[in-house]
Amino acid sequence: MATSEIAALETMLRGRTKALATTERRLAYDALGDMFPVRPDVKVEQLSLGGVAAELTATSDVRGPGIILYLHGGGYVYGSTKSHRHLVSELGRAAGARAIALDYRRAPEAPFPAALDDALAAWKALLKDNQPQNIVLTGDSAGGGLAVALMVRLQELGLPQPSACVLLSPWVDMLAAGETYTANAARDPVVGKEIITFCARQYLGEGGLDHPLASPLRSNLKGIAPLAIFVGSTETLLDDSIQLARQAGIADVPVRLEIWPGMFHIWPTYHQMLAEGRKAIAQIGAIMRSAIQTE
Amino acid sequence: MATSEIAALETMLRGRTKALATTERRLAYDALGDMFPVRPDVKVEQLSLGGVAAELTATSDVRGPGIILYLHGGGYVYGSTKSHRHLVSELGRAAGARAIALDYRRAPEAPFPAALDDALAAWKALLKDNQPQNIVLTGDSAGGGLAVALMVRLQELGLPQPSACVLLSPWVDMLAAGETYTANAARDPVVGKEIITFCARQYLGEGGLDHPLASPLRSNLKGIAPLAIFVGSTETLLDDSIQLARQAGIADVPVRLEIWPGMFHIWPTYHQMLAEGRKAIAQIGAIMRSAIQTE
Repeated sequence: MATSEIAALETMLRGRTKALATTERRLAYDALGDMFPVRPDVKVEQLSLGGVAAELTATSDVRGPGIILYLHGGGYVYGSTKSHRHLVSELGRAAGARAIALDYRRAPEAPFPAALDDALAAWKALLKDNQPQNIVLTGDSAGGGLAVALMVRLQELGLPQPSACVLLSPWVDMLAAGETYTANAARDPVVGKEIITFCARQYLGEGGLDHPLASPLRSNLKGIAPLAIFVGSTETLLDDSIQLARQAGIADVPVRLEIWPGMFHIWPTYHQMLAEGRKAIAQIGAIMRSAIQTE
Repeated sequence: MATSEIAALETMLRGRTKALATTERRLAYDALGDMFPVRPDVKVEQLSLGGVAAELTATSDVRGPGIILYLHGGGYVYGSTKSHRHLVSELGRAAGARAIALDYRRAPEAPFPAALDDALAAWKALLKDNQPQNIVLTGDSAGGGLAVALMVRLQELGLPQPSACVLLSPWVDMLAAGETYTANAARDPVVGKEIITFCARQYLGEGGLDHPLASPLRSNLKGIAPLAIFVGSTETLLDDSIQLARQAGIADVPVRLEIWPGMFHIWPTYHQMLAEGRKAIAQIGAIMRSAIQTE
């Protein structure tokens, strides 16, 4: 582990202004896209998928019909295809697949269940031209929670599941009940209970925080696709991943949970600066290739 | 998943007499060695390792200097190198390594910390002729708990850790506090709270069930080797694995936890009858090869 890389990133993350208004904070998120440009061979195409704005990225390493459907994080309030392009495109490269990221509607302008409705509409549109066993669903943070909620909704509707689901530091409980909010409060340079509570309220308005499709940790996970969950040991959201693994496991969902020491929220997004980010992407790529049988 | 294989095994496991005296139960455990003979190319050699009886198995697939040190399960009361030979030898094959299983002293004749003392003596003896980075520590059930306790003891003594530790359905809490003792009580065909409570008392005599070297879930896990934990979704011991993953993860130990749907206690031991057993052994072999850098 290159301690200097991690220390530099932590300093950068801790130094970010936390008190920005929503518009400024969205711009700050999207600035990641400027800070971390995509590699030269990445082709970017804007789409509409079931009426939802989306972005396709494809690298020169695409092999076969595999697709990654990516749901970005940002507390259901921030984040976009722009903020995550450098991550999504490299996940696609590692998987040998095309990647589609969604610009689902965000809170507070479009509260729950708008994001889920958009994800469902995109999934249905994707199924028109693709076999579900060729699709891996992926998401980080709020996008990870949205991915699980989508799979629960697919079960309710009797629609096919993706071949697998890979989650990066997922946020799956609006009640923020995990003990690691306290245990890791001092260690986590990115996420604290205050911002989580703020975003939960933005997303749900006056609605109940325990709604099973907003807090999919509290839903029936029976029958959803196999889960691979990647989380850092210093995250306040660590217990979200552990409890999700438990709830899915006991519901007979195949689960692989990896806890990476010293890593922080969605560390693969810093892959251009961080060896562990590149290593995680390579491992996730192997999981995706195995799921969609690339090559 | 071949449902008929699993159903046949579950019927067999549920049909076993639970009320045998210790001597008969030990014989019944060892009878697994007769029921599942080793493959023809396996060479078996009896050793003494730091004064502890041990057994070396080597297949024709051994490559390089890697060694698996295996601690068998059986509640600290039952089990032996004989009962586990067909599992240990095939794990060695999958890893391309020699495998050494220990006949550590058992309770009630030799209560805690006799088994741990034996494991420590064997580890020290092994280090005389081997590099720790070439050794993977492995164990199932009580042997999994013993493996974690050994690593905690190594940290206390300032001795080197193995390169990695692979645990199959580990039992790491003598207090049997996991909620899955209740949640999975009807589903688990092998382990219930009664036998666990009996074995805990056999192992600890009048001693406290929360001793951190008998219940390593309750110990400081900082600095122990990377963990790979395999557990079945129907196990009463599922929470032991999940809580161990959590405690190790938060202590910055690299953790990979896999929960396999529909699988029961130490299912890889039935690999001759069960496709999931063979699949698990292959995956564990890949983890071990990566740890000891076979080839």
